Amino acid sequence: MRQNRRKPFKERILRSSRSNKSRIILAIDVNDGGPRELTHQAIDLFEQTRHSICAVKLGRQTILRIGPERISQLLKKIHGHGFTTIIDDKLNDIDETNAAITRAYLNLGFDAITVNPFAGWKGGLETTFKLAHEHGMGLLALVYMSHPGASEGYGQQVLSNPRSRKARNEFEIFAEKAVKWKADGAVVGATRPSIIRSVKKILGTSVPIFSPGIGTQGGEIAWSLKAGTDYFIIGRSITKAQNPRKAADELAKASVILDD
Amino acid sequence: MRQNRRKPFKERILRSSRSNKSRIILAIDVNDGGPRELTHQAIDLFEQTRHSICAVKLGRQTILRIGPERISQLLKKIHGHGFTTIIDDKLNDIDETNAAITRAYLNLGFDAITVNPFAGWKGGLETTFKLAHEHGMGLLALVYMSHPGASEGYGQQVLSNPRSRKARNEFEIFAEKAVKWKADGAVVGATRPSIIRSVKKILGTSVPIFSPGIGTQGGEIAWSLKAGTDYFIIGRSITKAQNPRKAADELAKASVILDD
Repeated sequence: MRQNRRKPFKERILRSSRSNKSRIILAIDVNDGGPRELTHQAIDLFEQTRHSICAVKLGRQTILRIGPERISQLLKKIHGHGFTTIIDDKLNDIDETNAAITRAYLNLGFDAITVNPFAGWKGGLETTFKLAHEHGMGLLALVYMSHPGASEGYGQQVLSNPRSRKARNEFEIFAEKAVKWKADGAVVGATRPSIIRSVKKILGTSVPIFSPGIGTQGGEIAWSLKAGTDYFIIGRSITKAQNPRKAADELAKASVILDD
Repeated sequence: MRQNRRKPFKERILRSSRSNKSRIILAIDVNDGGPRELTHQAIDLFEQTRHSICAVKLGRQTILRIGPERISQLLKKIHGHGFTTIIDDKLNDIDETNAAITRAYLNLGFDAITVNPFAGWKGGLETTFKLAHEHGMGLLALVYMSHPGASEGYGQQVLSNPRSRKARNEFEIFAEKAVKWKADGAVVGATRPSIIRSVKKILGTSVPIFSPGIGTQGGEIAWSLKAGTDYFIIGRSITKAQNPRKAADELAKASVILDD
């Protein structure tokens, strides 16, 4: 397991983003085929797009298909080119289990993990935050997901105090937790720019916003960027494109249009 | 992938429970050691306890350590003795990802999966429920977890309708979703018997209650049973016991004390 001689995740991804002039995180999710074939697919997608991205995100299904040994080799290849890697776990278990899962990901070589604040702190995510930060691993807290049904949970109104009867948005509570827990990022779907704007006000500059949902799910890069997104997590719009290299390049250019 | 010639998960686990006179689901979570050693540990725990259990639950950390191929062999062994297997995933992603993860678990041979209703239905869990049920795979919905911090999310008060200002418990909304979505089980921590009682009223007899949290986390089998638990998910109280066989046997007896 890598020790805390590493710089924090937030600084590492920012450096990659600046040097590659891209706010695009490539989401690699490969499903159909044997372990060897899928590993080659993943490497090929990375190689085609690596000049236009700032990090790589893997889905859990890819680990289930490829297996831990090949994942470790894939991560070494990605690290070899100076990129950080995120496991999209959406962790939401009890402390002992969260810690065991986090340790397993650290062993595989991941640099950051997504967590669901709904799991709570005490006996929930507290241990994982401590463990991850000791190892320079980043924690990205879900604040509002990109799919329609996200409104059921992330969009619900919650009583902050049963006596005061004052209602708050669940996603605002999650954004405040992201700040309080010192998360390294907040995940807000690109499909909801107005939510990104509200969340940005709570997060300020201390917690960057990571937005999935561009393209296939209907999110627009320009709107999301203006609303406050710092990084875009993009999968199918690149990986299912006829020319992934070109698609990544165009998205990268659109993602830094406000940077000049 | 196994087709829908299988009986529903709910019927299969009930049959095992009756024939083995046990409501205990063995939670196998092995972490420390190499893949081969951990696989042996898992098989040994199963062999020692299999006369006193009704199913086996695996944690995600175990798959990350052992790898998919060995997990598949382990599941075959467990199936060979007529038991069903549950993957404790706490799934909470968008539809395409949920489906890809569920398909990967079906391929490995799992019979049921835990899901977090917080993810919502449309573009969230809908596809997974359809896919899983087509293959006779069970879906266990989290309703209230066993750790202290679970009160932050599962225990919060939610406005069911912004205009009516009527507040509801999050866990009651989740229990209603478990019924409406035709879940095969609801997970409620054994640490909170009064919640089990409230949830049971909503679920009736259509959705059995699965309770983790006995022993190490402070839950008591008798209280939880009287409150309405149908199955107990027990890990450390068995796996860390000096004599796992004896521990499982005693818990099994306590779990069916109301059945006579």
